[in-house]
Amino acid sequence: MPDRGPGWTTAGKFPIFQEKHEMPVTATLADRLLSTRSHSEALCQPLQTEDYVVQPIEDVSPPKWHLGHTTWFFEEFVLKPFVPGYSVFHEDYAFVFNSYYESLGERVIRANRGNLSRPSVQGVYKYRRHVTEKLMEFLEGEVPAEACDLVEVGIHHEQQHQELLLTDIKYILGNNPLLPAYSDCGPEEFPKLGAAEWITVPGGHYDIGHRGEGFCFDNELGRHQVLLGDFEIASLPVTNRDMLDFIADGGYRRFDLWHAEGWDWVNREGIRAPLYWHERDGQWQYYTLKGLQPVDPEAPLAHISFYEAYALAEWKGFRLPTEFEWEAAQEAFGWGNRWEWTGSAYLPYPGYRKAPGALGEYNGKFMVSQHVLRGASVATPHGHSRPTYRNFFHPHLRWQYTGLRLAR
Amino acid sequence: MPDRGPGWTTAGKFPIFQEKHEMPVTATLADRLLSTRSHSEALCQPLQTEDYVVQPIEDVSPPKWHLGHTTWFFEEFVLKPFVPGYSVFHEDYAFVFNSYYESLGERVIRANRGNLSRPSVQGVYKYRRHVTEKLMEFLEGEVPAEACDLVEVGIHHEQQHQELLLTDIKYILGNNPLLPAYSDCGPEEFPKLGAAEWITVPGGHYDIGHRGEGFCFDNELGRHQVLLGDFEIASLPVTNRDMLDFIADGGYRRFDLWHAEGWDWVNREGIRAPLYWHERDGQWQYYTLKGLQPVDPEAPLAHISFYEAYALAEWKGFRLPTEFEWEAAQEAFGWGNRWEWTGSAYLPYPGYRKAPGALGEYNGKFMVSQHVLRGASVATPHGHSRPTYRNFFHPHLRWQYTGLRLAR
Amino acid sequence: MPDRGPGWTTAGKFPIFQEKHEMPVTATLADRLLSTRSHSEALCQPLQTEDYVVQPIEDVSPPKWHLGHTTWFFEEFVLKPFVPGYSVFHEDYAFVFNSYYESLGERVIRANRGNLSRPSVQGVYKYRRHVTEKLMEFLEGEVPAEACDLVEVGIHHEQQHQELLLTDIKYILGNNPLLPAYSDCGPEEFPKLGAAEWITVPGGHYDIGHRGEGFCFDNELGRHQVLLGDFEIASLPVTNRDMLDFIADGGYRRFDLWHAEGWDWVNREGIRAPLYWHERDGQWQYYTLKGLQPVDPEAPLAHISFYEAYALAEWKGFRLPTEFEWEAAQEAFGWGNRWEWTGSAYLPYPGYRKAPGALGEYNGKFMVSQHVLRGASVATPHGHSRPTYRNFFHPHLRWQYTGLRLAR
Amino acid sequence: MPDRGPGWTTAGKFPIFQEKHEMPVTATLADRLLSTRSHSEALCQPLQTEDYVVQPIEDVSPPKWHLGHTTWFFEEFVLKPFVPGYSVFHEDYAFVFNSYYESLGERVIRANRGNLSRPSVQGVYKYRRHVTEKLMEFLEGEVPAEACDLVEVGIHHEQQHQELLLTDIKYILGNNPLLPAYSDCGPEEFPKLGAAEWITVPGGHYDIGHRGEGFCFDNELGRHQVLLGDFEIASLPVTNRDMLDFIADGGYRRFDLWHAEGWDWVNREGIRAPLYWHERDGQWQYYTLKGLQPVDPEAPLAHISFYEAYALAEWKGFRLPTEFEWEAAQEAFGWGNRWEWTGSAYLPYPGYRKAPGALGEYNGKFMVSQHVLRGASVATPHGHSRPTYRNFFHPHLRWQYTGLRLAR
Repeated sequence: MPDRGPGWTTAGKFPIFQEKHEMPVTATLADRLLSTRSHSEALCQPLQTEDYVVQPIEDVSPPKWHLGHTTWFFEEFVLKPFVPGYSVFHEDYAFVFNSYYESLGERVIRANRGNLSRPSVQGVYKYRRHVTEKLMEFLEGEVPAEACDLVEVGIHHEQQHQELLLTDIKYILGNNPLLPAYSDCGPEEFPKLGAAEWITVPGGHYDIGHRGEGFCFDNELGRHQVLLGDFEIASLPVTNRDMLDFIADGGYRRFDLWHAEGWDWVNREGIRAPLYWHERDGQWQYYTLKGLQPVDPEAPLAHISFYEAYALAEWKGFRLPTEFEWEAAQEAFGWGNRWEWTGSAYLPYPGYRKAPGALGEYNGKFMVSQHVLRGASVATPHGHSRPTYRNFFHPHLRWQYTGLRLAR
Repeated sequence: MPDRGPGWTTAGKFPIFQEKHEMPVTATLADRLLSTRSHSEALCQPLQTEDYVVQPIEDVSPPKWHLGHTTWFFEEFVLKPFVPGYSVFHEDYAFVFNSYYESLGERVIRANRGNLSRPSVQGVYKYRRHVTEKLMEFLEGEVPAEACDLVEVGIHHEQQHQELLLTDIKYILGNNPLLPAYSDCGPEEFPKLGAAEWITVPGGHYDIGHRGEGFCFDNELGRHQVLLGDFEIASLPVTNRDMLDFIADGGYRRFDLWHAEGWDWVNREGIRAPLYWHERDGQWQYYTLKGLQPVDPEAPLAHISFYEAYALAEWKGFRLPTEFEWEAAQEAFGWGNRWEWTGSAYLPYPGYRKAPGALGEYNGKFMVSQHVLRGASVATPHGHSRPTYRNFFHPHLRWQYTGLRLAR
Repeated sequence: MPDRGPGWTTAGKFPIFQEKHEMPVTATLADRLLSTRSHSEALCQPLQTEDYVVQPIEDVSPPKWHLGHTTWFFEEFVLKPFVPGYSVFHEDYAFVFNSYYESLGERVIRANRGNLSRPSVQGVYKYRRHVTEKLMEFLEGEVPAEACDLVEVGIHHEQQHQELLLTDIKYILGNNPLLPAYSDCGPEEFPKLGAAEWITVPGGHYDIGHRGEGFCFDNELGRHQVLLGDFEIASLPVTNRDMLDFIADGGYRRFDLWHAEGWDWVNREGIRAPLYWHERDGQWQYYTLKGLQPVDPEAPLAHISFYEAYALAEWKGFRLPTEFEWEAAQEAFGWGNRWEWTGSAYLPYPGYRKAPGALGEYNGKFMVSQHVLRGASVATPHGHSRPTYRNFFHPHLRWQYTGLRLAR
Repeated sequence: MPDRGPGWTTAGKFPIFQEKHEMPVTATLADRLLSTRSHSEALCQPLQTEDYVVQPIEDVSPPKWHLGHTTWFFEEFVLKPFVPGYSVFHEDYAFVFNSYYESLGERVIRANRGNLSRPSVQGVYKYRRHVTEKLMEFLEGEVPAEACDLVEVGIHHEQQHQELLLTDIKYILGNNPLLPAYSDCGPEEFPKLGAAEWITVPGGHYDIGHRGEGFCFDNELGRHQVLLGDFEIASLPVTNRDMLDFIADGGYRRFDLWHAEGWDWVNREGIRAPLYWHERDGQWQYYTLKGLQPVDPEAPLAHISFYEAYALAEWKGFRLPTEFEWEAAQEAFGWGNRWEWTGSAYLPYPGYRKAPGALGEYNGKFMVSQHVLRGASVATPHGHSRPTYRNFFHPHLRWQYTGLRLAR
């Protein structure tokens, strides 16, 4: 499933992604750029204008912010430095659409993104068109390798935001009392899973980290050997049936299953089921992109925090795999469809180095207090998952498609 | 300036408004209803769809919420009880558009109003049209006096929200980093004020409270005599020039001018000027509905908290008038254009009684920890001000057009 | 019950207290000083060292802080300005024991008072002895009238803190899970009250404010006439029996009885009974200074907030008297034993002026967002209550002996 | 440096500590118990009664709470289950002195420990004497192996609290504006460090975890091999000189050196130096147990958060060692005197299992969102450090003696 692009040169200048390809193939890059840009817009096609604006919680950004921010990224890192005489679309947009790049100056604080009615949705689309056109013109000419690399980063950056775009839309609609559907033929098609089996993995040395072909982020680099003991890992992820049993067995009220801070979280927030689950007349239903539906016991469990993943594994008498175990074993099982919490904290690999400049803010500064997830979800864009991909979130977050796989 | 309606009967059943008129004049009522309904929509005409949705702070409601809530009020209090067989437009709207009526069941908590992208703006306008049409049909028939009274309350209720609508729109646009104008020919036309003079008012007995003609709210009733000492009151309100001098004199840094909780507020919030004021290159500018403009020293001061009004009066060596002094003296000076903080806490008049049922939640339950403002502002709808009108806000709030007049 | 001191001169210089007496009678002043100083220490006699230190909530100060602060007041306002060559006991004590006088420099913020193990209790007692001795030496000589006035203020200031001392001690012990008694023969002796009667008070002009004999605080000055309508006031305060009935009738769960912010407070804090009340095996008990005891239905109700006082009056179908009604009628009923919430906000009387300098911070800066209480409690020191005394607290506070009297 | 006790049997029943010894040697155990108990009291000997009571921040417990809690541990886990007919000293003490054992019922919430003036210090000492005597009597008889193990756990538990006792005392005194000294001959003697050298450690397989002799905690068990790459580690920890240079170079204002959440912490808390550092007249001083002293540039740096450790390493161009690197290399350098932050999150070793029952709450439930520290500090009791010991704290905490060692 890894994304194997046709080989553009990164020339070793940007350690946040991997470096292997010999020559720029800008034609292809332009195609991929266009396709990525239009995919973001396609994801928003079912929305009404109002849906683009709101931000129910700080972690969720308004869809129009995602559309603007991914555009700003290209303007800031590609058009401004590489296109002579480029004048920015609107001087205030850098302020509005910068996300967290401290090196690039003042910005709207994250919690205030939902307070901005302007720029309008129409304005953001104009901004997108303007920047996409300028990029396409630019890519038609002689493009320095460095700029190609940055366009490539911009594509992957936009793909990451496509996943957030869909999960944020789900949050916005799924927390509206009217529970409106996103689409009748939405992307949320889940397999019916049978019974999981234990896959035995012998201990020994395993190579971890990106192999050096195709794109990757800097946090996957520094391929290195790890020594693992014998372990077993489930062939399938945990399903909703397990969660229904966990709830029925009082799992949310048994402190002994939880981390201390997980238990505090359960009580402080009044948690008694995964996100989007509603008990109606004694039956569990959940909000999906098609609207409210009965919980399907055979579908893979999603929208749980790391705390819940840990407690559920405790209750089953097993544990979460480490991210190394997961990567070592992943060829032996199917994955994708939801992210899987691992037992590993998000920390740098040996030899990890931050990129210089603003791009150096991309990954390294988040390497504390978060947990690694492996796999991919239904919201992950095509070509944006691979066995070495390291996703990461704080342990209490649930609005992504997050589940778990057991190990022992 | 009081609103002298053509005389409908309230029959003494709804103590939140005043009771005098002999017979229903429904034709006129229907005209006034239509005119009020369309005025709300006219106020929103300059908005883009996105502007209807956001809620930057809890006190500010999204414009579409105002449009929906004032509609819900008519549906809940008039159509449902009085129109046989009326079926509600949408069963979830009561939940979404109820404001604070505890007796009417669950509701979206106030701070979450800006998280709702649905119902859409278009949906809210449909809801408005539906309810307005049903009301008009209803008023064409034989209408019980009680229902007329409730329509009348609904009109005044919607007028109150028209003022909030405009001040909330100002807040939404004025806190956007792009500082977009609402309209080039907006309602914010302020007079150039000359020097104020002291008006001498002899002590004695004054009648306070509504006289018993025309509409009023329950908090104005209980007309009673108060005994006042001699006092003087300024013929004009305080201007921006006074505030500029106050700032220049370090007024925001002199604790001795402030209430203890006002001083805490200044420091906690980092207050150093009225709301909407920006210092640019050493010059004070303020956001107006036409966009950013230089502060006009001759215009009446607005957008200050009670704490600031008090501190400014202290600094001038004078004080705020009480609401009784204001009402007793008001015929001797011009007023309107901005609300004037008084030194009076918002408390019931002697003999005040809450209305029974949900309407009883209208005023009385706010009679603690707030201060009375008198007058009217540029945002006050025509026919919605009178000498006995008692407006009230918490002492830290500034997003209304709030200023002050001095007394001694 | 008013305090009629034997007549010292205040010479009109300190508007925070009243000005009438012709000549200093310093001998008597010294006696009263000594007696006040030793009474504070007597109140602490039942304490263990540890009880002097803790501060369970911000409003409650550690007893040793009260002992130190009242001492610092004399050092700061009397010894330093009037005793030539006086050197302060310890240079850091001003920082530790200043309370809220912004004009006197930096201070320990209020919420941190309970974090200070030093100065030790023994150290504070040494400080007290030192300052008391210096004051007594000073009063033996020729004392300027201004200094006498300040000693007088200091005595009244310390008496105010004696009331807080006792209520703070009650809070410290009454919130300890061991519920230790303060004393077996404590000051909490409550009368058994019979049925209240309505006292009819004719409307008319009443003089309000201090009459000009004896000490008073600046907030009582500005004696003025008010015009009252006819009213009736209860001969006795509300008893615990009324509260038991209110609870049994679901009063804490009926929103219609409460102010909006009172209802928020009830729900946010989970309030379901007065402070110190505990339900044990279906019986209501309350913590008293003698330990836990069954609630006495005939004793006057205490430890309720303004919100509860208002709701209880609503439930009875009556209302709270205004502070003017209370003062006008008070000769006709007995009072004392607990403070009585009135319906009046704490605002300046006509003609109120703050004192110059630090003493001006005494009262005026609190005149917003608080409610007036009248009467006196079992914790009020002898000679520290009078019909014109205006006590004030924020509407949610309950740790004082606060009850109510009904009016209609 | 590991604690090699003379060999008592744990019989494999309590996985939180290690299991090797064949037979109970209760005589020695009793001696060690007595010595531990009296050491706790010796640490408090310089305190005044008031110092035992306060809790300036939630993480810091009052000294008397430590004295009571370690006593309650023995009463709860040894005396109650193993001494027939034992009656508890005071029935409320379990409530007051339980810390976080959810399985043992209700308890005072942590933030409220400083609000309890009772039990008095004298009462706590009585409680200690009572329990120590009962334990000594018990150990004179025939003692089941399981009980010996629990006494052993209790000794180590009390030793852990001895370290907290001293650091909490430092916090209590060091945050008092009087900055009182704990003792003139205190335990804070720091070496003068010269220049560090790089120690080269070859990559390869290293055994990690406790070897199976002597006592250890459950989190050290599961000895396993890890594969490390080549690395270098500093022979000495970072000194105050490095911190002085870091400050002078603007390290606290350069966002690029910090984790994102570290940078938020620096700005939110206004951090600009390690805990206890004060700038006076341009010179850096720090509070020590002997009082305020000039910062010694040659002493090892202490009282920094993980965020600061990381930023300082970034600024030097190096990194923190992992806990595995530290353990693998530790024989080659001296350690002790302050804890050293590692780059490792606190996670279970392979094969980690929680103990059944209340003791299972000891370690495992904290294995999220914390970082591992290795080494020992001046506050660590004799016999309570070893190369495999895993200390852990949240990344923002600084009141322990926490420093760092560089690696590359």
